[in-house]
Amino acid sequence: MKLADCGEDRILAKLTRGIQHGAGVRAGIGDDCAVIGGKWDRMWRLLKTDAVVEGIHFLPGSPPAWVGWKAMARPISDVASMGGLPEYALVTVAISPQAEMDYLQGIYSGIKRAARRFAVELVGGEMSRSPGPTFLSISLTGVVERARCATRSGGRPGDLLYVTGRLGGSGKGKHLRFIPRIEEGRWLTGNFAIRAMMDLSDGLGSDLPRLAKASGTGFEILQDNLPCTNGCSASDAISDGEDYELLLAISPKDGPRLEPAWKKRFPRLKLTRIGHLTASSKKQSGLSRGHDHFSQPG
Amino acid sequence: MKLADCGEDRILAKLTRGIQHGAGVRAGIGDDCAVIGGKWDRMWRLLKTDAVVEGIHFLPGSPPAWVGWKAMARPISDVASMGGLPEYALVTVAISPQAEMDYLQGIYSGIKRAARRFAVELVGGEMSRSPGPTFLSISLTGVVERARCATRSGGRPGDLLYVTGRLGGSGKGKHLRFIPRIEEGRWLTGNFAIRAMMDLSDGLGSDLPRLAKASGTGFEILQDNLPCTNGCSASDAISDGEDYELLLAISPKDGPRLEPAWKKRFPRLKLTRIGHLTASSKKQSGLSRGHDHFSQPG
Repeated sequence: MKLADCGEDRILAKLTRGIQHGAGVRAGIGDDCAVIGGKWDRMWRLLKTDAVVEGIHFLPGSPPAWVGWKAMARPISDVASMGGLPEYALVTVAISPQAEMDYLQGIYSGIKRAARRFAVELVGGEMSRSPGPTFLSISLTGVVERARCATRSGGRPGDLLYVTGRLGGSGKGKHLRFIPRIEEGRWLTGNFAIRAMMDLSDGLGSDLPRLAKASGTGFEILQDNLPCTNGCSASDAISDGEDYELLLAISPKDGPRLEPAWKKRFPRLKLTRIGHLTASSKKQSGLSRGHDHFSQPG
Repeated sequence: MKLADCGEDRILAKLTRGIQHGAGVRAGIGDDCAVIGGKWDRMWRLLKTDAVVEGIHFLPGSPPAWVGWKAMARPISDVASMGGLPEYALVTVAISPQAEMDYLQGIYSGIKRAARRFAVELVGGEMSRSPGPTFLSISLTGVVERARCATRSGGRPGDLLYVTGRLGGSGKGKHLRFIPRIEEGRWLTGNFAIRAMMDLSDGLGSDLPRLAKASGTGFEILQDNLPCTNGCSASDAISDGEDYELLLAISPKDGPRLEPAWKKRFPRLKLTRIGHLTASSKKQSGLSRGHDHFSQPG
């Protein structure tokens, strides 16, 4: 059977079958970051790796500095979704020997800019020839206070669902230029009991079902409430992917306090209630499908 | 200027110019692993990332289980070269949607086998489509006692140089099937003051000059002493690369104790004295060049 006929989540389930996590692994395969730490440690460690591939995540003509920015910003966004702070990064590049040194330097300038902006220290990496497209992989470590760590699996029926920013239309440029929501993730987890959180990389239509599945709940979305990017439909907001906004679940009694506090702290970034989690894990209403890395024509 | 005209070490020097390491970074860009830890921490953390690319590090016809083994064994070998123990791994795969599920499962079976063998826990990863060759990137964390941590930079003039195993001819199969020298690295650093150590991934001809440069020394090699794989010449042993053996420098007064103790502990694996470090960093005798990822025709 070809991978294109399987779908990403099923492929991963097959490949990782039989893998068991030890006691120190607080969250493992299937969450935005792996979380490592002892039960009583004040700080937990986050591990994340992420790749961008030429022809898939960027094009040969994409500005190299933005390609580098994106490569570094993607795993930072995953750290944000756990409520954490990034620390150290390793960079792997596989690139054709025929590529121009200027092009590679452009990519690195973007990587370094994103690293500076989010206080990430570049401590190593690897370089290889590629006989095909350019491949950039960045692995990142981070830290989060045990008490703040937000995973996908803590949501409960009745929890309110919120998203930051606007969804859809990322292909017009935002997929390269987005700002990881580190500050927002820190503020949210520092001031509220965030039950579950993740970043929207494959689109609400793919990602929300993952959060609900991890939490053992269903969900109900009010499509009319979706904060669509200007010029985008609700269907774009659900399916385009690469929003890199935060999706979070919070107790209904915290909702009334969250909205005004957010407005005061982040007046220029929307926070929108888009629905809630439900008791029945079979209930998934208001959503069409998002992006799947393998099932799409490729 | 094209990358092929630059050479790997010069490319890396250009890209990483201006990057400064904070106080917690004990070894960073340019060593086998990044080393993170406080001055008085008993344990230091190791971070490593490594990639294998179809058409470069393995062929479309290479047995997938051995491809997976190699992808995991390479960063484990780097942890071995610091005297450390590996802990957690993240796996990134970029692969064509037209690839067979069986092929990818074969790769994962090799990854998991190497992980089990060296007590590495798989805690996450990432999957992407590739429009070209298959890319596998594995990032690995490890730990090492501060007192044991071996870097490339501690060698001194007069130190004896040793290598484990036999060099050369890895293209006949060893490049896929090698055994990372974790046990040997632990024993060496636990029983001797290892001044400098690294693993031989690009061949002695490329790697020894890197160790000498990091240590601020030169070197002198006795070519007749090189432990060549059966059927290989000294020149193969110097240039073939992908030996994944340990190269180490040790004080001359420890040499007499090391050799018999090694023979007793590892009777089936050679340990060979191949030369020594010299005071003048200009002295580099006995070596032709090893592998460079970009200057070779490719």
